[in-house]
Amino acid sequence: MFGKGLSVATVPFYPAADRFVGAGYRKDPYTFEQKLERIATIGDVRGVELSWPAEFEDPVPLKSKLRSLSLTPTNMEVELFGSAKWKYGALSCSDDTIRAQAIALSKRCMEAAEGLGCEQISLWPGQDGWDYPLQIDYADAWARTIDAIHEIAAHRPHIKVAVEYKLKEPRTHILLATVCKTLLAIARAGQENVGVMIDFGHSMMALESPAEAAVLAQTYGRLFHVHLNDNYRGWDDDMIVGSVHLWETFEFFHALRTIGYDGWLSLDVFPYREESIPSIRASLDMVKRLTDAAERVDRARLAALQKNNDAVGATEYARELLLR
Amino acid sequence: MFGKGLSVATVPFYPAADRFVGAGYRKDPYTFEQKLERIATIGDVRGVELSWPAEFEDPVPLKSKLRSLSLTPTNMEVELFGSAKWKYGALSCSDDTIRAQAIALSKRCMEAAEGLGCEQISLWPGQDGWDYPLQIDYADAWARTIDAIHEIAAHRPHIKVAVEYKLKEPRTHILLATVCKTLLAIARAGQENVGVMIDFGHSMMALESPAEAAVLAQTYGRLFHVHLNDNYRGWDDDMIVGSVHLWETFEFFHALRTIGYDGWLSLDVFPYREESIPSIRASLDMVKRLTDAAERVDRARLAALQKNNDAVGATEYARELLLR
Amino acid sequence: MFGKGLSVATVPFYPAADRFVGAGYRKDPYTFEQKLERIATIGDVRGVELSWPAEFEDPVPLKSKLRSLSLTPTNMEVELFGSAKWKYGALSCSDDTIRAQAIALSKRCMEAAEGLGCEQISLWPGQDGWDYPLQIDYADAWARTIDAIHEIAAHRPHIKVAVEYKLKEPRTHILLATVCKTLLAIARAGQENVGVMIDFGHSMMALESPAEAAVLAQTYGRLFHVHLNDNYRGWDDDMIVGSVHLWETFEFFHALRTIGYDGWLSLDVFPYREESIPSIRASLDMVKRLTDAAERVDRARLAALQKNNDAVGATEYARELLLR
Amino acid sequence: MFGKGLSVATVPFYPAADRFVGAGYRKDPYTFEQKLERIATIGDVRGVELSWPAEFEDPVPLKSKLRSLSLTPTNMEVELFGSAKWKYGALSCSDDTIRAQAIALSKRCMEAAEGLGCEQISLWPGQDGWDYPLQIDYADAWARTIDAIHEIAAHRPHIKVAVEYKLKEPRTHILLATVCKTLLAIARAGQENVGVMIDFGHSMMALESPAEAAVLAQTYGRLFHVHLNDNYRGWDDDMIVGSVHLWETFEFFHALRTIGYDGWLSLDVFPYREESIPSIRASLDMVKRLTDAAERVDRARLAALQKNNDAVGATEYARELLLR
Repeated sequence: MFGKGLSVATVPFYPAADRFVGAGYRKDPYTFEQKLERIATIGDVRGVELSWPAEFEDPVPLKSKLRSLSLTPTNMEVELFGSAKWKYGALSCSDDTIRAQAIALSKRCMEAAEGLGCEQISLWPGQDGWDYPLQIDYADAWARTIDAIHEIAAHRPHIKVAVEYKLKEPRTHILLATVCKTLLAIARAGQENVGVMIDFGHSMMALESPAEAAVLAQTYGRLFHVHLNDNYRGWDDDMIVGSVHLWETFEFFHALRTIGYDGWLSLDVFPYREESIPSIRASLDMVKRLTDAAERVDRARLAALQKNNDAVGATEYARELLLR
Repeated sequence: MFGKGLSVATVPFYPAADRFVGAGYRKDPYTFEQKLERIATIGDVRGVELSWPAEFEDPVPLKSKLRSLSLTPTNMEVELFGSAKWKYGALSCSDDTIRAQAIALSKRCMEAAEGLGCEQISLWPGQDGWDYPLQIDYADAWARTIDAIHEIAAHRPHIKVAVEYKLKEPRTHILLATVCKTLLAIARAGQENVGVMIDFGHSMMALESPAEAAVLAQTYGRLFHVHLNDNYRGWDDDMIVGSVHLWETFEFFHALRTIGYDGWLSLDVFPYREESIPSIRASLDMVKRLTDAAERVDRARLAALQKNNDAVGATEYARELLLR
Repeated sequence: MFGKGLSVATVPFYPAADRFVGAGYRKDPYTFEQKLERIATIGDVRGVELSWPAEFEDPVPLKSKLRSLSLTPTNMEVELFGSAKWKYGALSCSDDTIRAQAIALSKRCMEAAEGLGCEQISLWPGQDGWDYPLQIDYADAWARTIDAIHEIAAHRPHIKVAVEYKLKEPRTHILLATVCKTLLAIARAGQENVGVMIDFGHSMMALESPAEAAVLAQTYGRLFHVHLNDNYRGWDDDMIVGSVHLWETFEFFHALRTIGYDGWLSLDVFPYREESIPSIRASLDMVKRLTDAAERVDRARLAALQKNNDAVGATEYARELLLR
Repeated sequence: MFGKGLSVATVPFYPAADRFVGAGYRKDPYTFEQKLERIATIGDVRGVELSWPAEFEDPVPLKSKLRSLSLTPTNMEVELFGSAKWKYGALSCSDDTIRAQAIALSKRCMEAAEGLGCEQISLWPGQDGWDYPLQIDYADAWARTIDAIHEIAAHRPHIKVAVEYKLKEPRTHILLATVCKTLLAIARAGQENVGVMIDFGHSMMALESPAEAAVLAQTYGRLFHVHLNDNYRGWDDDMIVGSVHLWETFEFFHALRTIGYDGWLSLDVFPYREESIPSIRASLDMVKRLTDAAERVDRARLAALQKNNDAVGATEYARELLLR
């Protein structure tokens, strides 16, 4: 296993709701602490991604809890998307009061991360975008987003800020839609502690190759975090890793190995109708198979195939590494 | 205006929730009766689509309420998708008990429709499908769906049953995905009182031409109901009518006129961030513009263009009818 | 290997042209006979799909050539799409003269098939459709297509007619777009010798599950032929089998086995930049791996998982069968 | 009309071929000079985009020809995609010899532009990309592309170099896929005379908002050229302007006006089955309607709507400006 190790988000331990089943498809009898305890029972998992402040506000009691469970807090996501307040955006919101709240909340999250000993927060400005043509002033939204990222990142320069992009959902168009758009914004924000979070499924939705996205981000030294999952490319289905796009997922791990990615491999699945722990175990099993295969890649052999643009050869090599 | 007139679903009067904002983006201070009263204030609207049994169970008091508001109940949708119980499907569910409940509920809905004086119920088997390859037995699910439709329709042959199809959401794959799949199922179900409901946006998601879908359904005499809205084709965004696909929406109305559609024109928008009544008014304004233009079509002129496959001519004619 | 065995189309042996590189990406120094000889050298391949009349007109000399190479002619595709004459369609063309030519050509193809001892022809009405809203009269195009299929099939009732569907390309919308639309048309055409050809990639483009498409076609006893290849779902990339959608391809073979498919497994790849024979070998290697795995499926075990809608279990089972 | 005026590419005057109809759907009885003469007859068109060296090599005779027709050469596209030589890319090709040819050809094109008095060339590296996972070394392809752009641009710093991006076709994945990826590459290339060409249809394929793409490019002062056309977002259909996406096309013109775009409005349609001049006239008619409407936009009124994220209001305003 390369990178810092395996991490999971708490997402699969909550009831999975959608617009039709507001109460969620799964029962949720566990407290936050119990969820953490359940995560700690999953072999190989050493890190956990947290949502702030929905899950906790005060880092002090959580810090000892996590230590007792031997879990590292790998990332804290600021909740900038989960209430009607943010319906027209958080970081880019044209309402100055709302936007100021988003920035203040993100700064407080950095402080909580500091208190918890978590080296990174993440921003997912999922409500920042538009639904209809002509709805927003693009130049203004772009500038506001960049300024907000700058201001937040400057608040605690030793805490990393991972910016997660996504093409759409919940907006029909999200402003930070692709890896390159995010890299442009990060360059403008001008803070060394800002990088990009590549969610595999988000990258697939954006019609990117996640492997190439990782390589490009690393070219700028800005690949801070990855989320693992899968989907059918039209929507953020947050499915079991490798359950749809085996080859692209394998290639993604190969890219992470090649660029020397040293962050966490963090699972972000959202099993609406499947049980939490089995979905995670199935995902981790796939991660293990694919990272093992990635580590078996003879890079000189693959480089020679790539030098010749030999798609047949590369395809056969991947098959040899992965299939029975 | 052709068809029976304008109808609206109550959908836009509920809080619009999604998986991120479970409480919904809009406040919902109104009772069901107040929602109906608000609908009755919208000029031109003469019909209302109802959800059963979520909104009401007993048709008797509602009947007089609707009469007092001069609203016709145009359709009653059976709730076969809104609770965790249906998570693996309703009409096709491999669990016989669940499936029997779905059928029984649908039959009771027909009885309530009879009591209300509503001539049609609708089935949207939105949870009937699959998420992963190999998850279900397709032949079995297909047979169960058809048998269920047959059994329900036979319960009250004088009440129409409109089957609504959709490509995906909430499942990554819904069984009844396209107009032609639904027409095949209807033919097999073998009941004269079963037809298809074309939701404009669902048809667009399925990469159909909604106009062609309407024409094909009418070829079989099975076009029972239409839902009006719009989206970006990748998801069921349920947007304001004509706000994205002006030409296809116009063509849809032209097709409805051409085939002599005599059902309701029913609005099914889901404005997450927009106000209910303004969204409806904007949609109705567009419906009015486009149906007016459709009625101005010189059919002989268009037929001559079509005979020659003259895309430039047809495009220019549409422009002449619609644009300033 | 189930079905009648492996077949290949001659497509990969021609220069692969597109709109930018009209001369094609590959050199083509071989005569038609030499192409057949090259195909005969590929182990496991026992059948060949032919294009008529582009490749040959007179079946007599070809018959002995194929016999000498131990190749069975598995299908003859009528050329209804490859010249400007068909630009507004063949079977559905609103120009009666063009349409009559298409029907006559198809009938002559049946006669040639009879002469060759080929039990099936195929129709791919790829130019039959529309590009712009309002361009054609859908009802008329639908009726003309069905009547043409009827008339052609009636010409030689003992020769099978496989109708191939596709969502788009070269038209932005092709009339026979999905498996269910084609099954509806076939039912209307009313001839027992008409069935559907499922091209795996076309099915993926249409956002179908090819496995489900096969099962549905078989429900009607109308699955006559399959084409194997792969793509990214947005276009007919005609790539190496299993190179993108491993799981869906596996599930497709599982479905073919389950329904007792007894036709040919025919390869239809179009390697623009790859060499012909290596692309075919890579595809056949994948077909072999996946059909072998499909034959290893314990159907009772999978049925039990499916009965429970157990996506995690089904996913893991597939992984166990296929991955190292 | 804003910008420098209307320009057309010669594309619609060639036979429109695809992989099925290699000879093209249209007859092409005209010489290059005759094509120019036909273009000059189209009212309002003042500029022409040229393809080099396919259409001409020596600029001297062409210069006087264009002058006599009162046509300005608005752009010269280097042919880096139209022969098998470039099948594995031009600017990024891993074969140093091929790549050197691409760079040399581009430099010679700058010299020809200089001779012609054309202020801009364009690079469309449409063959630079990959088809299969693992086929290429992304970091290497990225670096090679940037270095090539740098080297070319440095050859004649007073000639502008417009880089055109596209998601796919002819490769399943093109390296320069989106506006932001191209802006990143341009920033790295480090030459002031390099900018981006936004092809409306390419931007739609990339799931961008072309209006936002234009605004972002202008933020960097790098919007050099625009191509006008339309498509269904899944493929580069190169259709008549505004024939599918009326609102997005209108918004694009509004954005060009707002940012003070001062380049050409250049038509790039590829009418496979429609006649050249009528397709162009239909497109120009739409451009005129939409640019006129864009000029009627009361920017203060729209800004107030956008400040409130008022989608209903913005939608209604657009309707008021455009519809009858």
